[in-house]
Amino acid sequence: MAAPNLRVNGERLLARLEALRLVGDTGDGGSRRLALTDADRKGRDLFVGWLRDAGLQVHIDKVGNIVGVLPGTSDGPAVLMGSHIDTVGSGGKYDGALGSLGALEVIETIREAGLRPACPLAVIAFTNEEGARFQPDILGSCVWTGDMTIEETYPIRDRDGLDVGSELERIGYKGIAEPGFLDAKAYLELHIEQGPILDAEGGGIGAVTGVQAIWWQEIEITGEPNHAGTTPMRYRRSASLAAARIITFADELTKRIDGLVANVGSIVTEPGNVNVVPGRVVMTLDMRHPEDARLGEAERALADFLGELETTSAVLIARRDLARFPAQPFDEGMISIVETAARAQGHRVRRMHSGAGHDAQMMATVTPTAMIFVPSVGGISHNPKEHTRDEDVVAGANVLLAAALQVAGGALPT
Amino acid sequence: MAAPNLRVNGERLLARLEALRLVGDTGDGGSRRLALTDADRKGRDLFVGWLRDAGLQVHIDKVGNIVGVLPGTSDGPAVLMGSHIDTVGSGGKYDGALGSLGALEVIETIREAGLRPACPLAVIAFTNEEGARFQPDILGSCVWTGDMTIEETYPIRDRDGLDVGSELERIGYKGIAEPGFLDAKAYLELHIEQGPILDAEGGGIGAVTGVQAIWWQEIEITGEPNHAGTTPMRYRRSASLAAARIITFADELTKRIDGLVANVGSIVTEPGNVNVVPGRVVMTLDMRHPEDARLGEAERALADFLGELETTSAVLIARRDLARFPAQPFDEGMISIVETAARAQGHRVRRMHSGAGHDAQMMATVTPTAMIFVPSVGGISHNPKEHTRDEDVVAGANVLLAAALQVAGGALPT
Repeated sequence: MAAPNLRVNGERLLARLEALRLVGDTGDGGSRRLALTDADRKGRDLFVGWLRDAGLQVHIDKVGNIVGVLPGTSDGPAVLMGSHIDTVGSGGKYDGALGSLGALEVIETIREAGLRPACPLAVIAFTNEEGARFQPDILGSCVWTGDMTIEETYPIRDRDGLDVGSELERIGYKGIAEPGFLDAKAYLELHIEQGPILDAEGGGIGAVTGVQAIWWQEIEITGEPNHAGTTPMRYRRSASLAAARIITFADELTKRIDGLVANVGSIVTEPGNVNVVPGRVVMTLDMRHPEDARLGEAERALADFLGELETTSAVLIARRDLARFPAQPFDEGMISIVETAARAQGHRVRRMHSGAGHDAQMMATVTPTAMIFVPSVGGISHNPKEHTRDEDVVAGANVLLAAALQVAGGALPT
Repeated sequence: MAAPNLRVNGERLLARLEALRLVGDTGDGGSRRLALTDADRKGRDLFVGWLRDAGLQVHIDKVGNIVGVLPGTSDGPAVLMGSHIDTVGSGGKYDGALGSLGALEVIETIREAGLRPACPLAVIAFTNEEGARFQPDILGSCVWTGDMTIEETYPIRDRDGLDVGSELERIGYKGIAEPGFLDAKAYLELHIEQGPILDAEGGGIGAVTGVQAIWWQEIEITGEPNHAGTTPMRYRRSASLAAARIITFADELTKRIDGLVANVGSIVTEPGNVNVVPGRVVMTLDMRHPEDARLGEAERALADFLGELETTSAVLIARRDLARFPAQPFDEGMISIVETAARAQGHRVRRMHSGAGHDAQMMATVTPTAMIFVPSVGGISHNPKEHTRDEDVVAGANVLLAAALQVAGGALPT
């Protein structure tokens, strides 16, 4: 490593996080900057101003991804770092913002130190990572990596019928650069964990090994609506009882299959009267596992269980997938670099997978990728109460700095 | 019994059931005559016309209960028979109508046969039994028996803000008779079972022993909304998982406590997103048992279980009663009369409790009461598909006839 003692300007980074939070301030510590709204435009304008102030070349691509580049001593692929600056409806201060502002801070620190890396360094803020306004989520990175085309993307509409193309134009961020225009040598993303593990274990840095496989489904149970007073138990075909058996089975599965998580987030009962046995229940089931094979195991066990349940509960069960993403492992070399950099700075390091989806999962399909997690107090995220301690914010940025220098190579004094 | 071979005019009864069904015809075999609507007025007008045609004295009381009286050979308390002619929103042909039209048919048959019972015979159609438009249900019988006052009743509003008093006046059924003006010697109600038991057992007559105790409650579970990907299972406080455990526990309770029925008819999850662990669930639980003591046993077992669940699932649970009615046993002498009359007519008879509430449960608090059940095909009720076979309709009316003659006494040829 060329500059082992180099450290970011923590005060500047923290001040910028707060300045960005105030754009779309919800008054309770949180922020609301839904993708391609006026608030998002103001946040982008602020961010682009900082990129320019730092002397970076700024490019906006056709899907509104914002890229700031510091040239290297040689041409060739860049070390890309970043995340996103849009938020959910009731968002926090750190989700996404930390990754993009942290990357900017890293590049600015390197530049101010008079170092010049061998390959270009770039910071990126991807468009519509949250998916709170336009679906799918991680939209900007999907287009950047070629997983989606511009032609597919522009017509996507929000609930009010406004489309991505027109909204990009309206806020002045329909750029001319081709998504993916910058060749990447590697991708690094600093992010809050959004879960409770690091915080519960007393802090430290997470060296993220990948994004787990995700499977969302809707399960529709058809029983028979009957009078809840006059129908003997043995004649009932209760969709709510069948739903309860599915919920408890999914929970048992998480005990049988180590690392599996399962959630039933929505249950809708019909007709929904206190004195009518529900004839229909529609419920969602979210299951995730870091390994595709183990999630497949859960899928087969669930299919067997639902088959039995149709017989034992005299109901009909129909399923449909709402989403299905394979596990996206990160690059072992990149994970090691993060781990080594964090240890060298005296941090406790934990290898962990990411429970949530991130732009990094798309970037990992095209370039060696890793993520750096810092603790979320109480695991709270997507919430105005989202909080990461100042020292953890700065520690994460310093690990990003060291990892970026390591990957970029060179870094001779200019 | 004065006239063991007397039988009702089955064709007339069946024709009137169909004529009444056509008032508010839903086009699919059902009827919609919500209490005190224009359709209810038309149904009432038709019914009152039939009472007058049968030579009965017609009285409308202050809550709109319609009473038709055939004087006896002596004054004194009347044998009252009836039910209601309002329906639920998507109602069937028999629920209520059979009891009031059956009672009319019985009285008309007795009169046409030239018999004159010792005490007066009366038919009644109670107002708003269903409770589909105005709550509570069994409103007319509650006022008739003095359980509610007129002053409490008139201001009750429907969802559109229209009140009982004004609607009674509007449809011309705000009568002048005092509710309960007619002293009752006994009350008999013919009704469809609305459950599957008689039909599943091959038909016959149900001699109803009483209305079971009913306990409706709302259970609110507060957990913690968390990310369904990033939160390890051990940190989750899932309100949907706790709800599932309550649903399966209630089902297990019905196996431990013979005769108990339980239903979770409504489950509402918040925030209700596929990828968020529900922080709050509000669910209903309907539990019933023919004996208050056994329902109390269920209540204590549930309370213990909820207490444990708060600990094991790290959730908070709040309960509130939505309704609570004690068991209302019928009069043993009256039950025997029904049973004997049905056997004498060659029917298989089954003693059974009523799973649903009926006007008879209020009448039983003031006079010896019993009910006669006839089979509901497939147990379907509150549904346009509600069906009772013609022969069962007529058989039920003939049992009512015999029981009424037995209770009324006399019945000498006029």
